[in-house]
Amino acid sequence: MSTSTEREWFGGQLIGMQRSRDGREEYPAVDSKTGDALPGRFVDATPDEIDAACTGAAGAFAAYAAVAPQRRAAFLRAICRELDAVGPRLTSRGQLETGLPAGRLEGERARTTGQLKLFATLIEEGSWVDARIDPALPERAPLPRPDLRRMLIPLGPVAVFGASNFPLAFSVPGGDTASALAAGCPVVVKAHPAHPGVSELAALAILRAAKETGMPEGVFNLVHGRSNEVGGALVRHPDTQAVGFTGSLRAGRALFDLAAARPQPIPVYAEMGSVNPVVLLPGALAERAADVAKSAAAAVTLGVGQFCTNPGLLIGVNGAELEEFAGEVAAALASTPPATMLYGGICQAFRGGVERLRGHEGVELLESPAAKSLSGPIDTPADSGQRGPNGAPTATAPNGPNDTPAYLFRADGATFLANQELQEELFGPATLLVACRDEAELREVVGSLAGSLTATLQTGDGDQELVKGLLPLLERRAGRVIFNGMPTGVDVGHAMNHGGPYPATTDSRSTSVGSAAIHRFVRPVSYQEAPAEHLPEELRDENPRGVLRMVDGWYTREGLRRR
Amino acid sequence: MSTSTEREWFGGQLIGMQRSRDGREEYPAVDSKTGDALPGRFVDATPDEIDAACTGAAGAFAAYAAVAPQRRAAFLRAICRELDAVGPRLTSRGQLETGLPAGRLEGERARTTGQLKLFATLIEEGSWVDARIDPALPERAPLPRPDLRRMLIPLGPVAVFGASNFPLAFSVPGGDTASALAAGCPVVVKAHPAHPGVSELAALAILRAAKETGMPEGVFNLVHGRSNEVGGALVRHPDTQAVGFTGSLRAGRALFDLAAARPQPIPVYAEMGSVNPVVLLPGALAERAADVAKSAAAAVTLGVGQFCTNPGLLIGVNGAELEEFAGEVAAALASTPPATMLYGGICQAFRGGVERLRGHEGVELLESPAAKSLSGPIDTPADSGQRGPNGAPTATAPNGPNDTPAYLFRADGATFLANQELQEELFGPATLLVACRDEAELREVVGSLAGSLTATLQTGDGDQELVKGLLPLLERRAGRVIFNGMPTGVDVGHAMNHGGPYPATTDSRSTSVGSAAIHRFVRPVSYQEAPAEHLPEELRDENPRGVLRMVDGWYTREGLRRR
Repeated sequence: MSTSTEREWFGGQLIGMQRSRDGREEYPAVDSKTGDALPGRFVDATPDEIDAACTGAAGAFAAYAAVAPQRRAAFLRAICRELDAVGPRLTSRGQLETGLPAGRLEGERARTTGQLKLFATLIEEGSWVDARIDPALPERAPLPRPDLRRMLIPLGPVAVFGASNFPLAFSVPGGDTASALAAGCPVVVKAHPAHPGVSELAALAILRAAKETGMPEGVFNLVHGRSNEVGGALVRHPDTQAVGFTGSLRAGRALFDLAAARPQPIPVYAEMGSVNPVVLLPGALAERAADVAKSAAAAVTLGVGQFCTNPGLLIGVNGAELEEFAGEVAAALASTPPATMLYGGICQAFRGGVERLRGHEGVELLESPAAKSLSGPIDTPADSGQRGPNGAPTATAPNGPNDTPAYLFRADGATFLANQELQEELFGPATLLVACRDEAELREVVGSLAGSLTATLQTGDGDQELVKGLLPLLERRAGRVIFNGMPTGVDVGHAMNHGGPYPATTDSRSTSVGSAAIHRFVRPVSYQEAPAEHLPEELRDENPRGVLRMVDGWYTREGLRRR
Repeated sequence: MSTSTEREWFGGQLIGMQRSRDGREEYPAVDSKTGDALPGRFVDATPDEIDAACTGAAGAFAAYAAVAPQRRAAFLRAICRELDAVGPRLTSRGQLETGLPAGRLEGERARTTGQLKLFATLIEEGSWVDARIDPALPERAPLPRPDLRRMLIPLGPVAVFGASNFPLAFSVPGGDTASALAAGCPVVVKAHPAHPGVSELAALAILRAAKETGMPEGVFNLVHGRSNEVGGALVRHPDTQAVGFTGSLRAGRALFDLAAARPQPIPVYAEMGSVNPVVLLPGALAERAADVAKSAAAAVTLGVGQFCTNPGLLIGVNGAELEEFAGEVAAALASTPPATMLYGGICQAFRGGVERLRGHEGVELLESPAAKSLSGPIDTPADSGQRGPNGAPTATAPNGPNDTPAYLFRADGATFLANQELQEELFGPATLLVACRDEAELREVVGSLAGSLTATLQTGDGDQELVKGLLPLLERRAGRVIFNGMPTGVDVGHAMNHGGPYPATTDSRSTSVGSAAIHRFVRPVSYQEAPAEHLPEELRDENPRGVLRMVDGWYTREGLRRR
């Protein structure tokens, strides 16, 4: 692992091709495993710097929107090369800042470049612009029809909020940035303060790619912001035209509210809390309770439970099979060693949530050796008053300050139905088993669920009728319905939907993963009787790019007869 | 013209297949030309009635969403037949309630049934659901890919607010209702109080069609609401999942704000104020100033100026050609007889706006005989204190209480740039000519414009370079860019975009006219590893409906090899 020094880090804002570091209050990045300060001193963006970044992005918009799709694709591919070129540094710094293992960070980089390439291929092909042509009908009665041609065009500068749990794939060079840049929108990213070093490395890679491929200055900008003020100013800035966010319900809703209160409201695509229910049907438990339990436990602890699609609810009907399932999950969690969460704030929030559940009437902590050994001292270090630079307790914990075991809680269906707060996401390695009296109560529990990114059905022989009844309920409550799997794998493709009804997101009409994510940052425009020279290529008679178009209601890649 | 009697009108709410009339305060429909009460007494929906309508719509949702597209299409076509069956009554009552001539109302009914049929054809064909399949790749490394299939599904009950200016095409049976029903969403319409009788006739036609085609009770509901409380309660109701609205900026923004403040925010598609700038380039004026003037004057006075796409700004560069243009517009408006506006409220708002413009420093009323003759008494009737039942002045006006001439105002570019309020829509037969010093100022004026539904370029020889500079500015500010036409014709097809940046709408990503309007009321859902029996037809291997799908990134209507 390379060791970085203070000098290697700029720590300020990257505005257009310029560096800016006007703020006074410096803060370090924090080693997630030890709580110690890492090399590099970072400063929040000042109001003037935020204004400069947004204004610069707006200044670049017209030029960037006019860049041919093939050149935008070349930019995205250049970002991949630059990210790979700094890959070892992203991994080594990422391990320190996030506590994630090297293999995970390397895999995440591959996923990040993979999604950049997916968008490059999408815009090279070009049909995503949903071009439609209604040719003129001069003879139509009672009124002639004018020539009308319509396609999607970029919205304008996009503010992207990096997430803590995927320092690459949902952060500076992640899906929000990739899809906005692909659409033709300049981007201003607010780095997540839990990994400012990785953010700086990734931002510099993007800026090098922009320079290499001749993109306009201002197409990409990075600002740091530990304070909520930075994010608020970004969303309020009149030049910002859309917001991409991944994080907590509280933060996402606050940004949504700010955007809705603007003189000109703008769309906010906030991916937020999700409990990702897994419904265990009788047939599945009868056939393979132990196997389902093992995969559930693996999904709960994957990435120390810090996945948006972490299965936070396991819902089944009481009986011997459910007891076997519960025992197997508890045993699997117990044999999972405590692991390091991303940063102090997230770990403290998790511990607070665990404490609330432990104290909740009707909720039982299913004992497991690992959980038991730490169940006493959970809040002791915090009480000692000693804290690391990130505010996390450091003093007496036998493991790192942000280490935690995994937890399995249990409540009966009636308790769950009576307590709305049991539906709140607990971000981290914990899950709640909801044990229902019978199938009717299971159905009632499913019908009571709020929106989630995913809903999973574990099914077996004889469950078909139950599935038929539950599927319409789950479709209304989730963006993705999974059969006989676990929700944690989120494949980046065309058919993925990573979104869902509130509170999973603020806009269930969108996905933040997969090629359809590009549609968040565009809007349609029609051209009526436009001369060919003023039409975008995708709308010209001869269809020079060969995109799939809807012509008079029919899909075709053929050109039109010349007017 | 048939004469209706009191007994023919129910005047209450239509909830599911039931009638309800719990409210106490009755009000009449008002004759737009005379201000007199028409047969029929109407009552606002009570909070309980609104709740019953929304709850009923939610109760119908699962059943209606499951209705096969072919049957939903049959429902839409049955609505057309029922509307045509009551066509003469819609026209005769419509003339009284709106002051619109019979020919316009008949044309509007044809447009209304035309768009219902467009949506019927769209859902019969089926490709609009944007089906995508990423087949499983079990051998993929490092991780196998699961089978993923994604399509659009309906959002849930939609609240539709009828507009006053199109009592059919943008009201009870209009585009919002048609697209929501086509998408699989039940609808609750709030009738516009300016045409409650037409609303009742249309609603009963829809309910007959629902009954004939076996649609679930609750798929369509009508509530009356003169008070803002009714609309507010509709938007706040937890079962409402989206809102379609056409009307004023103030009302649309108020509904948007209510929706954004809900515990679960919902999308609001409000089509609101739009000034629809027409940019007069030098070449166009040199070639055909008089012709452009005539078509501009016709567009300004079409439907007594009560079109969302009414050209409210005419922007040109000072010179002899612009003087010729101005003179021709003034003459054409002067020769247009005063005409009746839709209802008292809209006429009073128009007169207030005219007064504000007349009193505005730097704004000149270009005299025209018709405008001059009424320029004195504009506010006299209001001062007399005598008002008709709709609050409109009635007493001494020589014409009907809601009659108005057309107005042409003029300001120079500097005045326009310095006074943001000159960009506000003045709904009615009036337009503001902005006379710019030079092409640079014209560019500045265009660059200062807020969002509009449309922007129009009048071009001629030698204007190509100017167009190239202005087009990117106009694309950012409008949902439709028109060359050498007028914005008032809104064709209902696939390539139409009737939307635009705020304040034209609250959601520039959408259109309220044309087949793409259906996308407002849906969201994507992915199915992962779903057994064939639990998949919607559009996502099954064999593609039984033959829809166009994206399979592994390629568009095809072919089926998949069986798994």
